[in-house]
Amino acid sequence: MNPYWSPVVRALTPYVPGEQPVIADLVKLNTNENPYPPSPLAIAAMQRELGDGLRLYPDPQSTRLRHAIAAANGVEPECVFVGNGSDEVLAHAFLGLLKHEAPLCFPDVTYSFYPVYCGLYGIAHRTVPLREDFSVCVDDYAGPCGGIVLANPNAPTGRALPLAEVERLVAAHPECVVLIDEAYVDFGGESAVPLVARHPNLLVVQTLSKSRSLAGLRVGFAIGQPGLIEALVRVKDSFNSYPLDKVAIAGAVAAFEDVEHFERTRSDVIASREALAAELASLGFQVLPSAANFLFVRHETEDAARLQAELRARRVLVRRFDKPRIEQFLRITVGDAAQCAALVAALRAILVRAAC
Amino acid sequence: MNPYWSPVVRALTPYVPGEQPVIADLVKLNTNENPYPPSPLAIAAMQRELGDGLRLYPDPQSTRLRHAIAAANGVEPECVFVGNGSDEVLAHAFLGLLKHEAPLCFPDVTYSFYPVYCGLYGIAHRTVPLREDFSVCVDDYAGPCGGIVLANPNAPTGRALPLAEVERLVAAHPECVVLIDEAYVDFGGESAVPLVARHPNLLVVQTLSKSRSLAGLRVGFAIGQPGLIEALVRVKDSFNSYPLDKVAIAGAVAAFEDVEHFERTRSDVIASREALAAELASLGFQVLPSAANFLFVRHETEDAARLQAELRARRVLVRRFDKPRIEQFLRITVGDAAQCAALVAALRAILVRAAC
Repeated sequence: MNPYWSPVVRALTPYVPGEQPVIADLVKLNTNENPYPPSPLAIAAMQRELGDGLRLYPDPQSTRLRHAIAAANGVEPECVFVGNGSDEVLAHAFLGLLKHEAPLCFPDVTYSFYPVYCGLYGIAHRTVPLREDFSVCVDDYAGPCGGIVLANPNAPTGRALPLAEVERLVAAHPECVVLIDEAYVDFGGESAVPLVARHPNLLVVQTLSKSRSLAGLRVGFAIGQPGLIEALVRVKDSFNSYPLDKVAIAGAVAAFEDVEHFERTRSDVIASREALAAELASLGFQVLPSAANFLFVRHETEDAARLQAELRARRVLVRRFDKPRIEQFLRITVGDAAQCAALVAALRAILVRAAC
Repeated sequence: MNPYWSPVVRALTPYVPGEQPVIADLVKLNTNENPYPPSPLAIAAMQRELGDGLRLYPDPQSTRLRHAIAAANGVEPECVFVGNGSDEVLAHAFLGLLKHEAPLCFPDVTYSFYPVYCGLYGIAHRTVPLREDFSVCVDDYAGPCGGIVLANPNAPTGRALPLAEVERLVAAHPECVVLIDEAYVDFGGESAVPLVARHPNLLVVQTLSKSRSLAGLRVGFAIGQPGLIEALVRVKDSFNSYPLDKVAIAGAVAAFEDVEHFERTRSDVIASREALAAELASLGFQVLPSAANFLFVRHETEDAARLQAELRARRVLVRRFDKPRIEQFLRITVGDAAQCAALVAALRAILVRAAC
């Protein structure tokens, strides 16, 4: 360990993102990207931004984008915060709103970045086990908390919590911020954004990386009452005044304006998901009910690590988390028809060989 | 104050960036942007990036860009870290390398973001007064430090420290990291990058916002030995795995490849600076020697706040810091010939009126 590292860095266990391979022709179903391209209007808007104006700093408040997100969500612009991907937005929320003396609570099986933020910022936390079927039971969060974070739909399980249950949780914890991470909400979950107006302790975080096919652009946002948003702005302005570049702002604005592309893309993904779930079930997989753009599946007889390795050998990437309770599951992104067919064909070949 | 704010947010005093006005036709000399456009090769490279590939995450290691920066600087790629503007790179360095028990030291007059990072991360710090002429004397940093940060050339003064003095400082402090913030180095400073090979405690930070005319794109980087770079990577991977979007990576790579555009642009800025310095001196300003793309000036009789306001009324923006020792100075970005002429004409009109 390098002698110049701060005590913080010495103690860190960083997040490990899914592989971004440079090999071509891979069937890439490992990082929950959208199989369909971004809105052509977003591409056109970004093209218009490429020019001499890039010599100037972007708007530090990303005003245009905050207005576009506000309009799309039926809230006021002062209820919107934007950042360099929802990971950055989450990081600022952890430091600015979730770091208190009482421990922050989140499920034992969820987005594995949450404990990493806690390590980075020295936030005490407590994990709350999901039920046997990987569902969240809000009663399990009883008692005072320093904050609560739920991914809804949850990752990597894909399971969604009904909106009434989300509101019951938010209402039961007026003492702390409840952050609902809705990275996957557009694929079948119910957004908590309509609850923001009546709950000053609710912060909803979303991203353009999944349902708007813009993972390569890095734009995420939070919606909450202005008091919560102000905390995020204060952290941002103490970290990096201009988190969004001019191209990203322009592309994100247009992506929100192209409602038709968004609606078509997400319904295509949902249809593919249902077809793929049926195929996987027929191949002997237990498939958790998913409201996301991925499936969380476990084969009735085959070892998950072996399946993942054999899929990799056949140029199909899926993700597995070597963690308690879920080490026998694979998380498979819903691809387009060709990708799903390639996955199913590869699995069929692997399972036939295993049965011999 | 909102009851949900963490103690960290309650105590913050955020950085205030220079105004990014939406009004057209302003002569904008307040945020040290480059008056010349970015490389056409960078624009073309970004255009090629706008397409279906944006649905996928960027390379979390920004490998291509790190290689381009390494090649341009004669170092190995593992000596290069990239981030979402040099502000983000600085933030990660403060948390990962400069937060120790002993206080971090930096000048009393320097980039005003440094104390903000200290507030964000709870870093003890001590300011070391610049000499009467606003120069840095490295002997003033004697004694053990938790870290040292110098902007070189310094901002907002524009004064540069000779490379031999930088090396004397780095060599005198093997106990801590010395961070040299070279945001403005390409306009006449001497970079400390060649010292990196022999000093494991030296970290050099640069940006594409100034000399490469890409403030709107948000790309910065650090060069240091791999042990220091690894600390930054660990912080990044605990904060946001993908700080640079695909468009920014492509544009930044091409900007480093277009050496001819870079050389022409920066020598044009240097020539404008020298001409403007002479004009301002003739108008009764004391002009600090500048190795940056701005001038730090004080009028012999007129109040700086009044001059700034009168310039604003004439649609010319310059920056003033209402801080001890420098409240009578204006920081004026070096514009192109037309912008400099507009500034001088406005000042002349203001000063003539004042003399009546």
